[in-house]
Amino acid sequence: MTVPHIDPFHAMTISALAHKLAAEGRSIIHMEFGQPSTGAPQKAIERAQHVLATDPMGYWESQPLKERIVQHYQDTYGVSLTADQIILTCGASPALVLALTVSFVPGAKVALARPGYVAYRNVLRTLHMEPIELACGEAERFQLTAEAIAALDPAPQGLILASPANPTGTILSAAEMQAIVRVCQDRKICIISDEIYHGLSYGEPAHSVLEYDATALVVNSFSKYFSMAPWRLGWLVVPPEKVDAARARMGNLFLTPSSLSQHAGLAAFECQDELEGHVQTYRRNRDLMLKALPQLGLNHIAPPDGAFYIYADISHLTNDSLAFCKQLLLETGVTTAPGVDFDPVEGTHFMRFSFAVSTDRIEDAIARMIPWFQAQAERASKT
Amino acid sequence: MTVPHIDPFHAMTISALAHKLAAEGRSIIHMEFGQPSTGAPQKAIERAQHVLATDPMGYWESQPLKERIVQHYQDTYGVSLTADQIILTCGASPALVLALTVSFVPGAKVALARPGYVAYRNVLRTLHMEPIELACGEAERFQLTAEAIAALDPAPQGLILASPANPTGTILSAAEMQAIVRVCQDRKICIISDEIYHGLSYGEPAHSVLEYDATALVVNSFSKYFSMAPWRLGWLVVPPEKVDAARARMGNLFLTPSSLSQHAGLAAFECQDELEGHVQTYRRNRDLMLKALPQLGLNHIAPPDGAFYIYADISHLTNDSLAFCKQLLLETGVTTAPGVDFDPVEGTHFMRFSFAVSTDRIEDAIARMIPWFQAQAERASKT
Repeated sequence: MTVPHIDPFHAMTISALAHKLAAEGRSIIHMEFGQPSTGAPQKAIERAQHVLATDPMGYWESQPLKERIVQHYQDTYGVSLTADQIILTCGASPALVLALTVSFVPGAKVALARPGYVAYRNVLRTLHMEPIELACGEAERFQLTAEAIAALDPAPQGLILASPANPTGTILSAAEMQAIVRVCQDRKICIISDEIYHGLSYGEPAHSVLEYDATALVVNSFSKYFSMAPWRLGWLVVPPEKVDAARARMGNLFLTPSSLSQHAGLAAFECQDELEGHVQTYRRNRDLMLKALPQLGLNHIAPPDGAFYIYADISHLTNDSLAFCKQLLLETGVTTAPGVDFDPVEGTHFMRFSFAVSTDRIEDAIARMIPWFQAQAERASKT
Repeated sequence: MTVPHIDPFHAMTISALAHKLAAEGRSIIHMEFGQPSTGAPQKAIERAQHVLATDPMGYWESQPLKERIVQHYQDTYGVSLTADQIILTCGASPALVLALTVSFVPGAKVALARPGYVAYRNVLRTLHMEPIELACGEAERFQLTAEAIAALDPAPQGLILASPANPTGTILSAAEMQAIVRVCQDRKICIISDEIYHGLSYGEPAHSVLEYDATALVVNSFSKYFSMAPWRLGWLVVPPEKVDAARARMGNLFLTPSSLSQHAGLAAFECQDELEGHVQTYRRNRDLMLKALPQLGLNHIAPPDGAFYIYADISHLTNDSLAFCKQLLLETGVTTAPGVDFDPVEGTHFMRFSFAVSTDRIEDAIARMIPWFQAQAERASKT
């Protein structure tokens, strides 16, 4: 066994180039990361200011925050949990590390959709587990299917679900999710569900896997709907039989999340109006992008049911998405993520736009991209 | 291979009991955790307040903070690093996870001192590595020796150093550390040095392993000297040849630490007067404890060269340190940590006092403990 090679995020390379160009005076629009450009909601900031002024703080696990999250599951999904089942973490990323180390051992096979969030594959490899990537294309709306999981031989020990998914934004319907749960229960496959984009949907809301499977683990965070990515606060829901193992790992591997972030996170639950306003912005941005895509010549996209992404096929323009995204940045200032971050096989001809920025930035980006994409199409048609 | 059982911190159980008693109106003195009772330094708080008021923030790795840490190594140890070698983390705990996953694979043997910080053993087990615990007693000042490492057969792949150590506070001299580095270089043992208590020493300052070994990895944080434990900010120093692997793991497993904490951490470097004032408090507390120990009948302790701990032999009073610490709490309100957290073998007859509280709390704790310990000694002498 050797220490595995882990790929860096290529979007980070592109982002670093964008920051360099900005420092040189170029006008840059950041659509490369899944990060709201809005700050934390106002009451969360006020709460943090109050705590900073009055409380020296200590290591802390906020019982009120855990209880508020329990209430959120009851209100949103009709799912009853206990506060013990909520493990507060420094964001969704360490929550995934916890979920995997509690559930699987090195050598375990864990199935996941390709395309998918790059960290799934990389965290599995870092922990010497084996990612089993299931190719999901337009026909499957870029999502896992019960059939594909049933066909796996041998059955994997685990499965990572993501709905709404990154990079595509596609959402599993209740029926699709139930069918996946049924196959996993039959085959004794443990489900880890990444529900970080919940709250961000434009048609039917996303379902939690906990509505159908009380043994699943759920990763979530304050980074997306709550617009608090830089606060590094997330949570893991574990079934009762894994509470002790998860808590012991949390204490040893991570201790606790930032106390200030926990105070602010609790206040963020009181900011629904402000946060729903952000969702309306994303909806407007999504509509603008969907309207513009034909003018960009991008006619094959994943249905963006939720999250704040458009994942588009650019095979008519390039077979090197990294070079393509770099060129787009250099020539227009619009920063995007290459598909190779999400899909090492097919991602060479896909790219991801994140529309979690302000609407005037989206309008500006579209105006810059239309002539550029048209020029690319003309060039491609000549060769 | 199975998912390993990881012990919880017993001190947490005692701490939970203490909080329950406090809620019932009991007067409690917290000496169970290695956590300064002072808050973050004033300029760090002011900087955080300013950022909160003016900047929505985003995912961020603070280049100025990395450069300030590089300068700190130059100023304090005469060691030259590059900013790339500094990986900013959500505290020392995830820095250790990074260090281990970058350096070793499941099955790797990693040597460490017993007694030692419980998370070393538990993180190794979580990652399916094998802790090789070297018993270190009064004769070795509870520290690893070059001789003990030379005698290991087979040679382990790694070694965790801690100076000042937890739970003992003992510091390795330059000569001792050099001798350990020499053996490790001869035997190709990779050193991970936990330097989280640097800045807290009462005689000779602690040396960084980087003064003698440019291939070592160093874990550190803002939790102890900088009095910012609840801000969850730490760092890992990696040698140039491990920078890419460490950065890729950081991005996938953890993303970044809290942006606000990074702003505050940079400001904390400007607060030397305030922070040295805390060290003077700890020095005063340590003197009071050392003076009181004979009255407590505790005549065998590890030399507390640094950190803010006294690790005391209580074998004349008990062989069940957990029950002993619980009884001390119930009868006096003084909360301490049982030795079994740090040493599963000999820790049954040791306990740890943390003196990172205010001096009047220490005086109060001593006044409560003297009659209680004397009563325990009388009871023990009668049986």
